[in-house]
Amino acid sequence: LLRILAQHPDADVRVITSRGEAGTLVADMFPSLRGRYDLKFVTPADANLKQCDIVFFATPHGVAMAQARDLVTAGVKIIDLAADFRLRDTAIFEKWYKIPHSCPDLLAEAVYGLPEFNREAIRKARIVGNPGCYPTSVQLGFIPLLEAGVIDSEHLSADSKSGASGAGRKAEVGLLLAEASDNFKAYGVAGHRHQPEIVQELALHSKTPVKLVFTPHLLPIIRGIHSTLYARLTRTDVDLQALFEERYRGEPFIDVMPAGSMPETRSVRASNFARIAVHRPGDGDMVTILVVEDNLVKGAAGQAIQCMNLMCGLPETAGLMAVPVLP
Amino acid sequence: LLRILAQHPDADVRVITSRGEAGTLVADMFPSLRGRYDLKFVTPADANLKQCDIVFFATPHGVAMAQARDLVTAGVKIIDLAADFRLRDTAIFEKWYKIPHSCPDLLAEAVYGLPEFNREAIRKARIVGNPGCYPTSVQLGFIPLLEAGVIDSEHLSADSKSGASGAGRKAEVGLLLAEASDNFKAYGVAGHRHQPEIVQELALHSKTPVKLVFTPHLLPIIRGIHSTLYARLTRTDVDLQALFEERYRGEPFIDVMPAGSMPETRSVRASNFARIAVHRPGDGDMVTILVVEDNLVKGAAGQAIQCMNLMCGLPETAGLMAVPVLP
Amino acid sequence: LLRILAQHPDADVRVITSRGEAGTLVADMFPSLRGRYDLKFVTPADANLKQCDIVFFATPHGVAMAQARDLVTAGVKIIDLAADFRLRDTAIFEKWYKIPHSCPDLLAEAVYGLPEFNREAIRKARIVGNPGCYPTSVQLGFIPLLEAGVIDSEHLSADSKSGASGAGRKAEVGLLLAEASDNFKAYGVAGHRHQPEIVQELALHSKTPVKLVFTPHLLPIIRGIHSTLYARLTRTDVDLQALFEERYRGEPFIDVMPAGSMPETRSVRASNFARIAVHRPGDGDMVTILVVEDNLVKGAAGQAIQCMNLMCGLPETAGLMAVPVLP
Amino acid sequence: LLRILAQHPDADVRVITSRGEAGTLVADMFPSLRGRYDLKFVTPADANLKQCDIVFFATPHGVAMAQARDLVTAGVKIIDLAADFRLRDTAIFEKWYKIPHSCPDLLAEAVYGLPEFNREAIRKARIVGNPGCYPTSVQLGFIPLLEAGVIDSEHLSADSKSGASGAGRKAEVGLLLAEASDNFKAYGVAGHRHQPEIVQELALHSKTPVKLVFTPHLLPIIRGIHSTLYARLTRTDVDLQALFEERYRGEPFIDVMPAGSMPETRSVRASNFARIAVHRPGDGDMVTILVVEDNLVKGAAGQAIQCMNLMCGLPETAGLMAVPVLP
Repeated sequence: LLRILAQHPDADVRVITSRGEAGTLVADMFPSLRGRYDLKFVTPADANLKQCDIVFFATPHGVAMAQARDLVTAGVKIIDLAADFRLRDTAIFEKWYKIPHSCPDLLAEAVYGLPEFNREAIRKARIVGNPGCYPTSVQLGFIPLLEAGVIDSEHLSADSKSGASGAGRKAEVGLLLAEASDNFKAYGVAGHRHQPEIVQELALHSKTPVKLVFTPHLLPIIRGIHSTLYARLTRTDVDLQALFEERYRGEPFIDVMPAGSMPETRSVRASNFARIAVHRPGDGDMVTILVVEDNLVKGAAGQAIQCMNLMCGLPETAGLMAVPVLP
Repeated sequence: LLRILAQHPDADVRVITSRGEAGTLVADMFPSLRGRYDLKFVTPADANLKQCDIVFFATPHGVAMAQARDLVTAGVKIIDLAADFRLRDTAIFEKWYKIPHSCPDLLAEAVYGLPEFNREAIRKARIVGNPGCYPTSVQLGFIPLLEAGVIDSEHLSADSKSGASGAGRKAEVGLLLAEASDNFKAYGVAGHRHQPEIVQELALHSKTPVKLVFTPHLLPIIRGIHSTLYARLTRTDVDLQALFEERYRGEPFIDVMPAGSMPETRSVRASNFARIAVHRPGDGDMVTILVVEDNLVKGAAGQAIQCMNLMCGLPETAGLMAVPVLP
Repeated sequence: LLRILAQHPDADVRVITSRGEAGTLVADMFPSLRGRYDLKFVTPADANLKQCDIVFFATPHGVAMAQARDLVTAGVKIIDLAADFRLRDTAIFEKWYKIPHSCPDLLAEAVYGLPEFNREAIRKARIVGNPGCYPTSVQLGFIPLLEAGVIDSEHLSADSKSGASGAGRKAEVGLLLAEASDNFKAYGVAGHRHQPEIVQELALHSKTPVKLVFTPHLLPIIRGIHSTLYARLTRTDVDLQALFEERYRGEPFIDVMPAGSMPETRSVRASNFARIAVHRPGDGDMVTILVVEDNLVKGAAGQAIQCMNLMCGLPETAGLMAVPVLP
Repeated sequence: LLRILAQHPDADVRVITSRGEAGTLVADMFPSLRGRYDLKFVTPADANLKQCDIVFFATPHGVAMAQARDLVTAGVKIIDLAADFRLRDTAIFEKWYKIPHSCPDLLAEAVYGLPEFNREAIRKARIVGNPGCYPTSVQLGFIPLLEAGVIDSEHLSADSKSGASGAGRKAEVGLLLAEASDNFKAYGVAGHRHQPEIVQELALHSKTPVKLVFTPHLLPIIRGIHSTLYARLTRTDVDLQALFEERYRGEPFIDVMPAGSMPETRSVRASNFARIAVHRPGDGDMVTILVVEDNLVKGAAGQAIQCMNLMCGLPETAGLMAVPVLP
């Protein structure tokens, strides 16, 4: 987020909070930002967030909802990169995040920040729940097919693979280089917080009930999500390539690749783009969709800034057009 | 293969052929083998292979079948790690490998070298077609369910991920560290040689027709395959965990992990073990099976030596019980 | 180079040559550039390079010098990213590159493209020899000390480590992910082409003869060079930190880090910055200098564009101020 | 350690202690050991260590010395993989490890466990201080030259690079895959605990005082240390290759490679071997020595078992002859 904002033509970062790092220069924590920020981290208590037009919460679940009412009342817009404003059903939220939801009324007005499907609502939103990294990739791949009603919506499989940065910067043995590199595994097979989020949103775009098996895996890479999506076609007379091209025509960050393509995660590295390819293996009755994104950009901070641009009346692509870094 | 044979109590490597490396000491090419082999590579023409009890072909497709008749006539047993003796239907072989099959009669007697399903036939075989790395993992996961007739065999999905050593030691831009590391992608989505091999073998164990979508992916790791398998259950009253435990009881190299497990590739690194976990996410009507193996061992050389042990009347586990290397 | 030029405010790429890829869209070869270039590769014969203000040669050694006279005569400026215009002594060039030098007169006028030491000459140059990746890092670390005359210039050691992209995109077994990842080794210990280049340039800044032991190593990373430099101090009463800060004051791309720092390669990833730290371990008579750069940017394309900016009268930092990508 | 002991012909692991993991099956923590150990971790209080012939301490610094007297009095031999019995000078120990040394008398009898230089003493030892991973590699490279008196012992440089497993399994942000992969940096340049250990041991083999600049670096690999050592030759008429070959003749785990070699870390992966190459670049007056080892084996557990074999009258190579895992 800080990297992108440092290069955004219309953004000016006024304050950054951290309890643990209060007093530390941002550039001492992230040497890549030397010369870009003079700011120090301050404790939340010392931060005058109401001076801001917009506040991003990249905080543990529960923090944003605790501060939301006060800020929106003061006219500050909010984008929460955690889960407080994603799940519409507080019971589901509480089941998966193990904390009560403290402001259901604000949740009711919050907008799910996936511009490709909620652009107009985001423009008007005071509160945006920024989508999870996995859900972004899975929705981009399945929604066109659900909208068109051409797949069996009750037997969807999403086989997703994420780079290790998806877990954040928390120190955890399983994410150490010595444990996670030269290795690959699934996790959360029995249940992952992103599964209900995905199902909730897919269902909004489907006329039939949605059931989804979601299998996240940990990739030994830094950035990047690759979702391989499987569904049974209920009609095989549809031009799937045209369907996707049509659905995403004009979208600045969605690249529907030519038929037969297989996108790689590095082709979007450090950028806000997502690339999609659709296949019908052996011309059978199954469809396979491949979606790649950078989990930290289109899957998190880039998408949040895309929402900020919309909420603030800026060009949607402002600050987000950097070419992906390859190799 | 050379690493494992160097530590095998009953094997003595007599001759190693290579056109390109003829005259080079094995230990000069692979410094890890310094002190283990005095052999030099020799050209095939200079190699007296008939002195051997058994010959392994780790050669391009087509080489084994060219030499097979001569060797088996001389009483030498053959294990082919390439594809010459895997596909029973020569038309399918020729479609995928682009060369005619030169000895259909030998193909007819060859045995598919997956001991967990063909043990007795392997014991008596003169020619073994060693299974592909991906097919081994997919079969280990699907066959118990097909045998039991509890899944929709016409809508199977295998989402497989392989380390880069699966492509062999050939110099190819896409496999360079600078291109393939910190990256992830699918390949062969439209069709991969291992797909017909898998379908052929699965069909032998299924009462209903088998259709499979197979998606291989390139993992930025050295060794390891992780196959995530999806199928629709036709019956949900089956104890899947018990079914797998029962099926593989007594198998020395198959580890059915406790319910809820998620095996990681490094847990079998450099070993001949495969680990399997079976899940029914959300107690729905889909089953997810996770299978890991080392593509170079259980997926290639280790399995070949397991077959050798059977063919030569040695203990099946001889030379193959090394503990996996973790971390 | 293409990535940076796509984002350069004053550059317009008119033509790209490649024999092997003629006819291919640039964006088909590098999907990260989809939407940025409509150009196809053309054969050199079909390329009208004289329409350009400046031509970059990212070609095998020997190509630039074959075309240089024709282009400079036509008023086109040249930046060679290969070695044709780096070594002043043609005998040394011919010893290391095994080809005769075809235009010693042009070599005589060519300027070594390290702006921090040759800025004014580069501004006026028609031909720039862009420095090697290793030499850039070693010179940035040693020259301030040689200029100041405070080290034993005849016993310098440069222990350099480079990411695998330093070897280019050529397919070579030793650079495959399966061979080079989870591994580390030195190479070229007996002699490396960059050693004479470094010595030539260091000598220009030293009053005493320069002798250097240079040990390159292959790092299992994509981008990044870390040079750890060792020298014996001939004077221990010098404030080394101040010396470096003074020498590089005002340099837009050189970051002399605070005393005690240890720069990491990712802190300059995908950027034109170099970061330097100077240490005197145990307050003894040895100095250790740590230098990091991105071998593909400050070590190659970025430096070339920095030179282009100077040669074309543009702001030196144009197109080069992107924040490093971390993580 | 557990991996190697599981395959040791003469070892039988009776008890494993862990406060945090008490009650957990060893095989649940390390799935690679499934089927090899039935043991659970027990708290130190519940462990009857006196039943053992030998106890390994792979514990935080300070633990071994707290239990040592009790165990040796009971006739149990001790190998400490931490630092309690490495540094002879308790003042130096206390400076670097920030705890007082509680049993200087036992320290006085303890033997430094580098068999290549202390074999006879280790055979008779009750307490062995197992060498640090870096010190093992640096000593193997420098001692032959110091013994021969052919280098300037007061200006030694050791540029060492270690895989991330060298830091142990502790959860630390800087060692996360997302932070440490695709990255390289030095650390501890101002001072590292292994520096005084190395100097202490080198000095025992040198007639002249030893001064050493030691620069450790973090490699983005799992296992492996590569030390590149630099020294000024005081005599250039010595056959360095012969000197090393002679010094290590007959050593089962030290491989002096042919002249001109450049060992790679993977050539010793998961094995107890160290490989060494000695170079005199440009036939000048500097010597460069390259040493590789697996930091977890010859740099830790393997060396400890080599010591155990000596202390218990077993063949020195028992359980340690596994072929390195390459690739």
